[in-house]
Amino acid sequence: MDPRILREIEAIFPGDRILTGLGDRYTYGFDASFGQYLPELVVQPQSVEQIAGLVRLANDHLIPLYPRGSATSLSGGPLPVKGGIVIDMSQYPKRLDVDRENLLAVVTPSVITAEIHRAAESVGLFYPPDPSSSHVSTIGGNLLENSSGPKGLKYGTTKEYVIGMEVVTPTGEVIRVGGKTVKSVTGYDLTRLIVGSEGTLGIVTEAILRLIPKPPARRTLLAHFPRLKDAGYAITRILSSGILPAAMELMDNACIRAVESYRPHGLPTDAEAILIIEVDGHPSAVDEEIRRCEELCLAQGAGGCKVAENEDEREKIWMSRKMVSPAITRMGPTKISEDATVPREKIPEMMEHLKRIKEKYRLQLVVFGHAGDGNLHPNIITDERNREEMERVEKAVGEIFEAAVSLGGTLSGEHGIGILKAPYMEMELGREGVMMMKKIKEAWDPNNILNPGKIFPAPGQTKVVLR
Amino acid sequence: MDPRILREIEAIFPGDRILTGLGDRYTYGFDASFGQYLPELVVQPQSVEQIAGLVRLANDHLIPLYPRGSATSLSGGPLPVKGGIVIDMSQYPKRLDVDRENLLAVVTPSVITAEIHRAAESVGLFYPPDPSSSHVSTIGGNLLENSSGPKGLKYGTTKEYVIGMEVVTPTGEVIRVGGKTVKSVTGYDLTRLIVGSEGTLGIVTEAILRLIPKPPARRTLLAHFPRLKDAGYAITRILSSGILPAAMELMDNACIRAVESYRPHGLPTDAEAILIIEVDGHPSAVDEEIRRCEELCLAQGAGGCKVAENEDEREKIWMSRKMVSPAITRMGPTKISEDATVPREKIPEMMEHLKRIKEKYRLQLVVFGHAGDGNLHPNIITDERNREEMERVEKAVGEIFEAAVSLGGTLSGEHGIGILKAPYMEMELGREGVMMMKKIKEAWDPNNILNPGKIFPAPGQTKVVLR
Repeated sequence: MDPRILREIEAIFPGDRILTGLGDRYTYGFDASFGQYLPELVVQPQSVEQIAGLVRLANDHLIPLYPRGSATSLSGGPLPVKGGIVIDMSQYPKRLDVDRENLLAVVTPSVITAEIHRAAESVGLFYPPDPSSSHVSTIGGNLLENSSGPKGLKYGTTKEYVIGMEVVTPTGEVIRVGGKTVKSVTGYDLTRLIVGSEGTLGIVTEAILRLIPKPPARRTLLAHFPRLKDAGYAITRILSSGILPAAMELMDNACIRAVESYRPHGLPTDAEAILIIEVDGHPSAVDEEIRRCEELCLAQGAGGCKVAENEDEREKIWMSRKMVSPAITRMGPTKISEDATVPREKIPEMMEHLKRIKEKYRLQLVVFGHAGDGNLHPNIITDERNREEMERVEKAVGEIFEAAVSLGGTLSGEHGIGILKAPYMEMELGREGVMMMKKIKEAWDPNNILNPGKIFPAPGQTKVVLR
Repeated sequence: MDPRILREIEAIFPGDRILTGLGDRYTYGFDASFGQYLPELVVQPQSVEQIAGLVRLANDHLIPLYPRGSATSLSGGPLPVKGGIVIDMSQYPKRLDVDRENLLAVVTPSVITAEIHRAAESVGLFYPPDPSSSHVSTIGGNLLENSSGPKGLKYGTTKEYVIGMEVVTPTGEVIRVGGKTVKSVTGYDLTRLIVGSEGTLGIVTEAILRLIPKPPARRTLLAHFPRLKDAGYAITRILSSGILPAAMELMDNACIRAVESYRPHGLPTDAEAILIIEVDGHPSAVDEEIRRCEELCLAQGAGGCKVAENEDEREKIWMSRKMVSPAITRMGPTKISEDATVPREKIPEMMEHLKRIKEKYRLQLVVFGHAGDGNLHPNIITDERNREEMERVEKAVGEIFEAAVSLGGTLSGEHGIGILKAPYMEMELGREGVMMMKKIKEAWDPNNILNPGKIFPAPGQTKVVLR
């Protein structure tokens, strides 16, 4: 880095918050997707003024900035693909104030999402979004990616819980958007525009989250199905019976086998699918609803159904779901996690497409996900050093996107576009749709400083996993 | 209008869909706020192609376009303040398809919101947003203003239920935003940007709405409080007890008296406030919850509490709330409806401010609203021909906004900015906040064709009710 620019950075940050060593720079060069890029340096801001100063400096010298939380992104969100400066927001001062009277939490972006869950629950409240990574991921990362987890079906996504923010704009101004009221129509909804913008439209320095009363009771069941299609029908039947479960999770046969070989849970390895269904609410309501879910699963061809009778049994059921990721990680060195999402009733059809793609390209492809809201997580386990296999993976990923879009679905339900889906944006949104997004990016960030190389494909970019 | 331009319009629309008579133009010159403007002509599009063609023509000739639904706006949303062409969307072909499997409805903007309620409920589903005007207002108008009604507390606002749209952009391109999946993070959330944009960022030609299972039971109570502050505390106590009511409506003493003199309901005219609380959900849950609400109201100083024991009694309670608008309309020829919204616990403080403002400016000011989400509706009943009184109204409205913002609230919870709050935008959002919104408007609508004169104040504009 130009020594004059470095001196300007040193005028903003104390020496111990600027990391320039090669080891540090490598450490900040990857996330939970794959790919490795080397930033020029890393800063650890301690105040909004430092961030605003850095953004203005970056505009003066045209330096790319890459904000980063815990870097659990599966789409390459924080990767410093054009070098520049990584802004490590995980070391930003932590503040987490629960305002019980107004059912709100005010948080800084470095707070780990699970800490918000605990703080809310300790006063009888509830923050529903719960990405699988919530024990390590920061709320800042969660909200810029709008990652949401299994409860989207009943409770909506992260976006539905962010009602206000303090944000540093791409030109280095500090603004407040939204506020402490659930209803606000004072001008355009910049809050929801910035949530899910993958760090391309602003750096969040504070968020106001809406909390809700904690449901007093919950019940969980695990049902296994000899035929996957029937699991799909069971989901639709339950939802149209008037029950809105808090979660409806699906695991396919490959997942079941992976979990059983990793850590046996007594799952039926010949079942084509497992559904985990959880209902929450008033105690007598959930007792009645979980029995009704059981009946509907059995009527729809479930081979068996187990309702957890106590918290231990409930945890055991959820543990089998949580083992999926570690179990499949053991199947190979490279894991490509997709999250193509389809309208709920199209899940059986999407599963057929995935099966066909798996066979056509002879890949290890497992499927699990949040079936209640159509948000599937097809994962391809491969080895990025195996060029020939990666070429098949490249084609398979393209066909997964095509299948999702052809069924009226979307490239990404909650992982974001990042670098791994950018070339397919036009397929879903059309040229004009992408253009309207780009107009916002260009109007707000004329020098393309914030997280460049993400969401919008570079001219001619067609590959997603090959490089 | 220039005859050459008129010929171009006639090439897009058949003669009977172009209204040029003075009577017609007057009819399309007002809404439910106040003020009267004369458009040059009115068109009634029957297809998205006609709208796109008109928008391109308007860009060529720099003609302002004013889309309009049923014109129930309380903030001047559809008023043709700069003349030009009114686009009467209320005559757009009606389509309302409920997709029970996917819990969705696909609608065109001309559908009346109450028709969506009925269609959803006929198959056991539920569309929660319910503005007071829902029996006459179109869904297109509802979603462009994000008007939501009493159920925002538990169910969120209109925005939370719109997941996809077909939109004509301000430059006349037809795009689709969002889709049929609840989870989607494919690029920026243009859906939520356009919802609530008051017709300044696009004309909606189709919307995909999320539905939820209809709650099987509901219970309602009416409590009256000798002291208004206690009603505020009761709201907070109920919400922090773990109950999330479907609605919590407040009426102040002036409202109670207005209703009683308009159509007697046996309301206690000496009470400072009435709360109407409704819970919905599982039958045994709602029975328990409504009793708990009653206990908490009484413990918090309610003078009396009536739980509806059947649907007739429930309707009678709601009728007293619905009579507020007609009752206060009789108090004078001009009604200024505000909807300043504050964080919930600030309601007692906001009510004190409103009482002070009412006395200071000697005005007929009544307050009711959706207290559960802090969304109050202070209404000033006046006579716009009385210049001296209108000057006091002007000052009172400014102080209402100042009070709301000083309490951490917002200018508008659901009525929109329109022309009636534009001068106060910077007070809430700051210069930079307004600028970020303006950058989007300018990037999307470089010729300022769509609904010009709304949201953003004209240079030097300071007055809201005086002209």
